[in-house]
Amino acid sequence: MGNPCVSASAWAYVDGAVVPLEQARYWPNDLAIIYGEVVYEAARTFGGRPFRLQEHIERLYRSLRYARLDPGLTPDELTTATLEVVERNRPDLPDGSDTWIFHNVTRGSHPHFGTVGRGGAGPNVLVWTHELGFRYWARHYLEGARCVIPSVRHVEAAAQDPRMKTRSRMVFARAEQEAHALDPGAYTLLLDGGGRIAEATGANVLLVRGGEILTPRTGAALEGVSLGMARDLSADLGIPVREADLTTYDVLVADEALLSSTPYGLLPVTRVNGAPVGSGQPGPVFARLIDAWSESVGVNIVDQAQRFAEAR
Amino acid sequence: MGNPCVSASAWAYVDGAVVPLEQARYWPNDLAIIYGEVVYEAARTFGGRPFRLQEHIERLYRSLRYARLDPGLTPDELTTATLEVVERNRPDLPDGSDTWIFHNVTRGSHPHFGTVGRGGAGPNVLVWTHELGFRYWARHYLEGARCVIPSVRHVEAAAQDPRMKTRSRMVFARAEQEAHALDPGAYTLLLDGGGRIAEATGANVLLVRGGEILTPRTGAALEGVSLGMARDLSADLGIPVREADLTTYDVLVADEALLSSTPYGLLPVTRVNGAPVGSGQPGPVFARLIDAWSESVGVNIVDQAQRFAEAR
Amino acid sequence: MGNPCVSASAWAYVDGAVVPLEQARYWPNDLAIIYGEVVYEAARTFGGRPFRLQEHIERLYRSLRYARLDPGLTPDELTTATLEVVERNRPDLPDGSDTWIFHNVTRGSHPHFGTVGRGGAGPNVLVWTHELGFRYWARHYLEGARCVIPSVRHVEAAAQDPRMKTRSRMVFARAEQEAHALDPGAYTLLLDGGGRIAEATGANVLLVRGGEILTPRTGAALEGVSLGMARDLSADLGIPVREADLTTYDVLVADEALLSSTPYGLLPVTRVNGAPVGSGQPGPVFARLIDAWSESVGVNIVDQAQRFAEAR
Amino acid sequence: MGNPCVSASAWAYVDGAVVPLEQARYWPNDLAIIYGEVVYEAARTFGGRPFRLQEHIERLYRSLRYARLDPGLTPDELTTATLEVVERNRPDLPDGSDTWIFHNVTRGSHPHFGTVGRGGAGPNVLVWTHELGFRYWARHYLEGARCVIPSVRHVEAAAQDPRMKTRSRMVFARAEQEAHALDPGAYTLLLDGGGRIAEATGANVLLVRGGEILTPRTGAALEGVSLGMARDLSADLGIPVREADLTTYDVLVADEALLSSTPYGLLPVTRVNGAPVGSGQPGPVFARLIDAWSESVGVNIVDQAQRFAEAR
Amino acid sequence: MGNPCVSASAWAYVDGAVVPLEQARYWPNDLAIIYGEVVYEAARTFGGRPFRLQEHIERLYRSLRYARLDPGLTPDELTTATLEVVERNRPDLPDGSDTWIFHNVTRGSHPHFGTVGRGGAGPNVLVWTHELGFRYWARHYLEGARCVIPSVRHVEAAAQDPRMKTRSRMVFARAEQEAHALDPGAYTLLLDGGGRIAEATGANVLLVRGGEILTPRTGAALEGVSLGMARDLSADLGIPVREADLTTYDVLVADEALLSSTPYGLLPVTRVNGAPVGSGQPGPVFARLIDAWSESVGVNIVDQAQRFAEAR
Amino acid sequence: MGNPCVSASAWAYVDGAVVPLEQARYWPNDLAIIYGEVVYEAARTFGGRPFRLQEHIERLYRSLRYARLDPGLTPDELTTATLEVVERNRPDLPDGSDTWIFHNVTRGSHPHFGTVGRGGAGPNVLVWTHELGFRYWARHYLEGARCVIPSVRHVEAAAQDPRMKTRSRMVFARAEQEAHALDPGAYTLLLDGGGRIAEATGANVLLVRGGEILTPRTGAALEGVSLGMARDLSADLGIPVREADLTTYDVLVADEALLSSTPYGLLPVTRVNGAPVGSGQPGPVFARLIDAWSESVGVNIVDQAQRFAEAR
Repeated sequence: MGNPCVSASAWAYVDGAVVPLEQARYWPNDLAIIYGEVVYEAARTFGGRPFRLQEHIERLYRSLRYARLDPGLTPDELTTATLEVVERNRPDLPDGSDTWIFHNVTRGSHPHFGTVGRGGAGPNVLVWTHELGFRYWARHYLEGARCVIPSVRHVEAAAQDPRMKTRSRMVFARAEQEAHALDPGAYTLLLDGGGRIAEATGANVLLVRGGEILTPRTGAALEGVSLGMARDLSADLGIPVREADLTTYDVLVADEALLSSTPYGLLPVTRVNGAPVGSGQPGPVFARLIDAWSESVGVNIVDQAQRFAEAR
Repeated sequence: MGNPCVSASAWAYVDGAVVPLEQARYWPNDLAIIYGEVVYEAARTFGGRPFRLQEHIERLYRSLRYARLDPGLTPDELTTATLEVVERNRPDLPDGSDTWIFHNVTRGSHPHFGTVGRGGAGPNVLVWTHELGFRYWARHYLEGARCVIPSVRHVEAAAQDPRMKTRSRMVFARAEQEAHALDPGAYTLLLDGGGRIAEATGANVLLVRGGEILTPRTGAALEGVSLGMARDLSADLGIPVREADLTTYDVLVADEALLSSTPYGLLPVTRVNGAPVGSGQPGPVFARLIDAWSESVGVNIVDQAQRFAEAR
Repeated sequence: MGNPCVSASAWAYVDGAVVPLEQARYWPNDLAIIYGEVVYEAARTFGGRPFRLQEHIERLYRSLRYARLDPGLTPDELTTATLEVVERNRPDLPDGSDTWIFHNVTRGSHPHFGTVGRGGAGPNVLVWTHELGFRYWARHYLEGARCVIPSVRHVEAAAQDPRMKTRSRMVFARAEQEAHALDPGAYTLLLDGGGRIAEATGANVLLVRGGEILTPRTGAALEGVSLGMARDLSADLGIPVREADLTTYDVLVADEALLSSTPYGLLPVTRVNGAPVGSGQPGPVFARLIDAWSESVGVNIVDQAQRFAEAR
Repeated sequence: MGNPCVSASAWAYVDGAVVPLEQARYWPNDLAIIYGEVVYEAARTFGGRPFRLQEHIERLYRSLRYARLDPGLTPDELTTATLEVVERNRPDLPDGSDTWIFHNVTRGSHPHFGTVGRGGAGPNVLVWTHELGFRYWARHYLEGARCVIPSVRHVEAAAQDPRMKTRSRMVFARAEQEAHALDPGAYTLLLDGGGRIAEATGANVLLVRGGEILTPRTGAALEGVSLGMARDLSADLGIPVREADLTTYDVLVADEALLSSTPYGLLPVTRVNGAPVGSGQPGPVFARLIDAWSESVGVNIVDQAQRFAEAR
Repeated sequence: MGNPCVSASAWAYVDGAVVPLEQARYWPNDLAIIYGEVVYEAARTFGGRPFRLQEHIERLYRSLRYARLDPGLTPDELTTATLEVVERNRPDLPDGSDTWIFHNVTRGSHPHFGTVGRGGAGPNVLVWTHELGFRYWARHYLEGARCVIPSVRHVEAAAQDPRMKTRSRMVFARAEQEAHALDPGAYTLLLDGGGRIAEATGANVLLVRGGEILTPRTGAALEGVSLGMARDLSADLGIPVREADLTTYDVLVADEALLSSTPYGLLPVTRVNGAPVGSGQPGPVFARLIDAWSESVGVNIVDQAQRFAEAR
Repeated sequence: MGNPCVSASAWAYVDGAVVPLEQARYWPNDLAIIYGEVVYEAARTFGGRPFRLQEHIERLYRSLRYARLDPGLTPDELTTATLEVVERNRPDLPDGSDTWIFHNVTRGSHPHFGTVGRGGAGPNVLVWTHELGFRYWARHYLEGARCVIPSVRHVEAAAQDPRMKTRSRMVFARAEQEAHALDPGAYTLLLDGGGRIAEATGANVLLVRGGEILTPRTGAALEGVSLGMARDLSADLGIPVREADLTTYDVLVADEALLSSTPYGLLPVTRVNGAPVGSGQPGPVFARLIDAWSESVGVNIVDQAQRFAEAR
């Protein structure tokens, strides 16, 4: 609500065309609001190039099938639209910086409230971008991030599979509110109903123990694209990766803990619920992975974050 | 998205002022979209008068406390704003019809994306109205409604208490998609993880057996304002109401099943998963309650619905 | 109840001898009725030859150990009796058709009610056969089968392990009643209490995704003999098979879904809860597997089914 | 299986007529065998008069609704048939003894196997009687009964509501096998998945503590007709009865524990898992209730049992 | 371990006699250490008089029955011993102060390790006292206490009923460690596996909403003697008390929250997980109850605590 | 309590020094008693040499991290202290016998009760030894052990991870009491809340089926050092070992079942809940493993146990 104040040069793909971003808005009768019924993706660029965009698009279409939502365009058409939005917004991006790429798909207006908003039938597809907010995580590459596990549990698979990426995330919001009230600035790690580690709000969890990387089982968390990258890099580096049922025990006895997510790639976790993880410092497996990642994408990820964090 | 096409005379309370409804919109950086983080209420008028508005406002403030969201105005201020919106929109309402009253509260823009949309800090409060869509339920007063219990389960209380009224309802949306694929037009009834009846998507469930009304326990479902009305009317009519753990067994052996919800008040359920409930026809307890309700609010609820359903 | 009307030439193994099938009956004091305490197997022939009979017999004896029920004869003795029943009934079987082979083992009469029925102590072993009812599934090879996931959940392992094959299957019966009321003719797929896919009522579930076959973990479902055959054929064809925790998400994003069961071997599932699976058509992995199966047993499985389905 | 050896004068209601009991039998293609799909009731006489027969019939029809099984005759018709069977079998009953009254309802033959057995469509209704086996429980009135809680848990309500009385009770059979292997002659008490007391296999559980009777909540167990009688007698005697979540703790700290069931009415439980309950002797509340029950039905329940137990 | 430094005048009941407290110690082969197998009670005096000692003793004997541990002396004998210990230690207690009274019962040495420690068979009963540590909670009467709900859940009833008071409380210890790492000084509130409020570590929880007091259901928590006192006082004051399934929602929307426990009686909770409860200040129901309690026991509870807290 | 009667030559490491064992004792104000807050290890010698001591020490430090308990000395320091205690006690050990090695770590006195016991801050570390009690298990190598699965379930991981080795084991004690009341001398096997096999009280469970060894998944049970040895020996012998979800079904259909634990290494289980496992006799895989183990440690494990069992 209120007035949009985006710069004139920001563009988005809205309802089939690239238009000024200020035209991307949801009326209260949209199912995006009525039911939080938004399937989405969040990708990014490295060095200006979209990173594993195809994987993000494929995951989006899996989420859409699960939500029984037909977006009305093919993966290829969406890829084309995405690349166009990235190009149109490139001039606005500071040199050397990188950008988020967001996809939101909704079912459109609720039929009961057709006379509000556009009232149109059919799904809405939005693609927009936004410069990455490096200042929010830059220091965590160096100092490590703190995690808090709140009392709030993740939604059970019997209600909703966490592999669908949806905007209907009030549980995440409440978990973060609870965690931040006790430790502002901490990341929020969710357990499932049985006390197993599921995922952080917006990130996958990786534990290092005895030279091996452990992750929650497929199905416990979003199938992270960054997690996939971390798996690939680990394979290249000869670090085995294994899925397991993990609990707080595994975090507290781990040599290292990591979060993987689109905006920052990988972060080292150095405290959980106030207790140190491993040495309490970012560890060597993190260092090897983030270096390999940087090399792979041609961007020094840690340096870039520091540079743009200071710039603000 | 797209163009708003509301009539010029529709008004809403947005960010502290009553403005044209077309100014009520959410940008993609609003936490309403990012997290589906919208706490809301849905009230209505009977005969043009807001019905139990104070109870709705109180429930809204309970939801807000649970969500740790400060709306920035008091219940009294919100009541005043609500009444003003209702008055401003009254001229547009057909004679004898009634209106929804919606409250949406969000936390505002996500701090990472401040340069999109209004970028303002602090919560957004929206109040808007919309004529009730009688045609969607009018015939169910007479014929009864069908319910389907899908395989999707309700969110567990360990993740989120169903007493908070939130727009983050993708689980409801998916449950309805599943139910409607098998029986279009059916209402959707959710069980909890233990197979106990929780609530319908947007309605409370009441069962009649042996002259007594049974409802799921407090905490299994939204604390329905219409359910409260049904309780009060039952007390007046000498019908005992009792909370219990209920399963599909209770529905299938019930004499009658009812749904209570703001737009329609009460509906008789005559089939569940294809099996008849009781006689398979709307029953006498429903009839007594809907008559008492009509008398209480001075509107013949069933007649009004038929009249306006035909009008479309 | 009522009069048996089996043809004079139908034979069964009953209480240690091959006798006319009409002598195979259970009195109401049998624990088969009192407790539904029947451990059983269901095998079939291909081209008149019992298929993996030894595996069925071994599974039967595992079920018997779990049920603490001593059948009073050895696996070899039961195999001999089985083959004799098959031979005795062969003349009645239409040329080119095939037959079910059923084993039922019960504990005998309930001691409290010894004066009804035979009153004998000790277990009863029954072996009987029946021509396969191809008409019930023939068209599903070509068109695909529809599945419905009802609200009824599978029995939890804490109560009973699904790997025991028992006739005490009222849960299956109720699940099917619920599914069929919404979609007559659909197969019924059960989730466990945590929302994980367990099995269809009488069939195992296989999903194809990315060239790999996924099945629920051992312990979630009956250890299907047909599933074992599908695994073996997949190994021959170079298709990897992996166990995983699977949910409705996995079905909805699968390229193909299959059911495996004794009577039909394999069927393609093309719709689940009204949504298409993959392309909505039987897929290439199904085709490769059913062809390999046909070749392996020397019977064109699909053709045989069409031929005998039309014959009725 | 084998030969029926019932006396010539035993009669049963089978498929609409009263016929010799030996005509009551199930072929292997009956859904009674295929799925254990039998809904049933077990009533008894006191002094030759059916006890609370109407309540049993009503519960049967509730079970039938839950099972979606139409028996094809009305409650009144079934009552008439029941009374006729009781009358026809009365001459065989020793003087002063009493009889079980059983109702079994099945859906009939499985459609796939119509050529075995009668092959008829539609449900089967069986009513039969059998003299009560007093010797199995007579001494427990005097000495008390032992209970064992096995590791096997009751079926969860998400799979099947325990209020349906079904013959598909393999879980009960297995629980008893486990309990009897450790303590032959003990009654078997089942917990639900959360460790709450559900019911004994075939009996309800009542605990006495501080002058009050506690029972598991409605929905945790069969709605016992004998439990209802115990409630009524308690009301007459001024003993309060209350439902609660109960665990092994409640049993072990109880003053008395009781089982209620059709054949014996009430039994005192004096040991659970080898530990004494209360004083380890039948207690005063049991004595008051069984006396009141005897008086109410005009039969000295304890004496009758001793007399007929010795007679065998 | 290390040297005992108790004052010469401290006395305890150990193994049947009142002896110097320094003789009360556990060797490593005691089941108190091997299994944490200690059943206990914690009572206190008000104005020097043991408070509801009989209730504590009765609860102890219920715990012992659940633990299958025979203490070797009767409740009356234990009461006598307790009173003697209190008397013997009275001279050491500062004037106007009050004392804890602890009972520990263990099974004695583990049979495998009889040659360590006393090696004796049979149970050990210890009674000892210690002046109350008013300084730990005195200011919470005035300012209110903070609670944290950690990620650790309470032990489920299927494993152990929380109504047994046992020293085997590592779960409590870990929950407190987690809570204190985030908020030192906070009380720790535990949820059960389903997200329902169970109890604080060592205290019961009471919520005030709309003039009514709500508590978790019996069976979710220790049957608190102080809770019983609060119930009695509420009855006297005309405040209704009701048991319910409660979640974090109920805490966050409550008007007041209270903890009840032996040492402090009642405390107001003013923050939970960093969010204010009610007004964020101790409320009127707390004030009425603590005043009534003080009057009942003849000690101004709040004043006493302040006085002795300052004295240290 | 009572008098310590250890021989003069028994030594223990207590609070930083090797002292007579009788100085190792816990006062009632120690958190070892207050909360059962003892993290521990139990190792042993074979032929006088500590067996896999480093693994035990490492597991201890993992438990300590999970318990957030800093022992105040390094693993190397603790190893040195351990070896010294073993050496000091060696003269007392009968020739050819072997010894337990125990480590107990506690947090020290509860701050509220500082005036009892030593009152010191900081953790306590105790190392002590005791000759193995061969007579308790010697015959089980030859005859096999019986297991009982009680109704008591293991603590869920949401409350406490079973991989921490803690003395707070009242659940184990109660489970054993229940099992022993029904079958004295049986080992006690615990299921988790979902009916999956967790562990025996103090031992891991291994099943042999079809030439393969199956164990519960990591995280379901203590990470047994003896289990690790069994894995290593199996690898040497070419026997595959695989983790799986296991239920009572798996035990009852297994060819062999084994328990692994520090004192006895491995034992064959020949009965579970009264039913035979496999042939009901110790099996060949057990024989191969115990032989290989004996060879590896240079002690004939079975013979040693018989010899010292008879000696008592």
